[in-house]
Amino acid sequence: MKIGDHVIPFFQGECGTCICCRSQKTNLCQKFGVNPLKSVMVNDGKTRFSTMDGNPIFHFLNTSTFSQYTVLDSACVVKIDTKAPLEKMSLLSCGVSTGVGAAWNVANVQPGSSVAIFGLGAVGLAVAEGARVRGASKIIGVDINPSKFFKGKAVGITEFINPKDLDVPVHEKIGAITEGGVDYSFECVGNLEVLREAFLSTHTGWGLTVLLGIHPSPMLLPLHPMELFNGRQIVGSIFGGFKGKTQLPKLAEQCMCGTLNLDEFITHELPFHNINEAFQLLIEGKSLRCLLHL
Amino acid sequence: MKIGDHVIPFFQGECGTCICCRSQKTNLCQKFGVNPLKSVMVNDGKTRFSTMDGNPIFHFLNTSTFSQYTVLDSACVVKIDTKAPLEKMSLLSCGVSTGVGAAWNVANVQPGSSVAIFGLGAVGLAVAEGARVRGASKIIGVDINPSKFFKGKAVGITEFINPKDLDVPVHEKIGAITEGGVDYSFECVGNLEVLREAFLSTHTGWGLTVLLGIHPSPMLLPLHPMELFNGRQIVGSIFGGFKGKTQLPKLAEQCMCGTLNLDEFITHELPFHNINEAFQLLIEGKSLRCLLHL
Ligand SMILES: [Zn+2]
Ligand SMILES: [Zn+2]
Repeated sequence: MKIGDHVIPFFQGECGTCICCRSQKTNLCQKFGVNPLKSVMVNDGKTRFSTMDGNPIFHFLNTSTFSQYTVLDSACVVKIDTKAPLEKMSLLSCGVSTGVGAAWNVANVQPGSSVAIFGLGAVGLAVAEGARVRGASKIIGVDINPSKFFKGKAVGITEFINPKDLDVPVHEKIGAITEGGVDYSFECVGNLEVLREAFLSTHTGWGLTVLLGIHPSPMLLPLHPMELFNGRQIVGSIFGGFKGKTQLPKLAEQCMCGTLNLDEFITHELPFHNINEAFQLLIEGKSLRCLLHL
Repeated sequence: MKIGDHVIPFFQGECGTCICCRSQKTNLCQKFGVNPLKSVMVNDGKTRFSTMDGNPIFHFLNTSTFSQYTVLDSACVVKIDTKAPLEKMSLLSCGVSTGVGAAWNVANVQPGSSVAIFGLGAVGLAVAEGARVRGASKIIGVDINPSKFFKGKAVGITEFINPKDLDVPVHEKIGAITEGGVDYSFECVGNLEVLREAFLSTHTGWGLTVLLGIHPSPMLLPLHPMELFNGRQIVGSIFGGFKGKTQLPKLAEQCMCGTLNLDEFITHELPFHNINEAFQLLIEGKSLRCLLHL
């Protein structure tokens, strides 16, 4: 890489040489995997930033991008076409890649298949966009925030379910409108009750639940081993299964040529000094991504 | 079918018309699925046997084969080559198909891959035979009964681990001898602690644990949702993923031509009136399958 390159940083690195990077079955690089506790550069165990008085400022998730400039390992950054619109490309660093990739690489959604998405934040809506591009015939969005439903339509969601409007569990409602359940469900919330509903919403025999939400509780999976004998499966997904260096440039191209439509994901634009207002919009569930102008 | 046909009965039926039978993704027929509580014929809800004084004798697992003659639905029986050796074909009704199919259809073991099998009864040894046929380079058998190890060698097990001989958890030992874990692990015991060891014994990134054991405890899966983010997966397997009517005839052929070797699975032969002795051998872990002569 050289000065002036346009690049995308990404938190799930790709060293290219470890056993996982050499495998086609996973994107979980052993050297640059996600570890929220890792606070230094991998190659020398040191930091690259410091306060004015010399104390270290630690790194976070391999990228440390909450700043105007950063230092990261070349395993965590990839060069893209200079004509790619940078304000949209930042979406590929995490949320959109995670959601689109979960539909494409992890679930491998097929034309005509049915999908249920639990949680319609940026990641859940990106799953919908991925499923739409793949030609899913039914894309069900589930969220307790009704304002998400308007945005959802624009990215291909065909039906909405607000659990608060139902007098039956969500999985029963989904079973009823899909002849027994969806082919794929996606948990984008990080809640074990939602995870169980997502699991039970898939069709027995072949249903696949993809786990994207972060579950902070110490509780274990709310599934009995025998429930796996119904043929339903569950699988976790980090960064949508994308190998960053290998696959992000093509994803950027797909955004440029319109295969993937990211217009709906930038909901607000604000001057940089309004950054706290931008966070408030995010916390209140009103924005997906806010573009900050310097 | 007609009188004189040679057939294999099987408990996981195949009606051929339900949504699951029409799918290539599952063998779990919706009409003739396994249900230990189902005690009557599917088509009319009645029984076909009765005691001398007219009380019904109920059916079990679609086949009711604990008798010299039986009545079962044509969805649960398949015609095979009359030259196939019947005393071995009975193995395809359950244990051997379940184990071999778990390796072939569910895990899809590839040449050169590594496998760990927890529990070396008939099902676990059948997994080993299936993995051997597929060309697995490392087949690790785990059992607390050392007498299983001799038999295991004959079906292709390359290394044995007796957890009682270790001062570390089994998964640590397996990780050490496989550069980070096996590609596939199989739980053939029905114990949640064993299930967790099997899960942790696979390689992060792509490891797949296939669940074959029956877990009677009300305990849930001993896995945290975040553990799925290491790229390990777990999947359940009924009857090895085989569709009985469609696939068993070919499996019988593979036994006849020697691709699959069932010689090791019939460990004893006894006259029928010694049936209780045969059961005792099974209970004590001394036999796999005992042939009873009328
Ligand atoms: Zn790597
Ligand atoms: Zn069927």
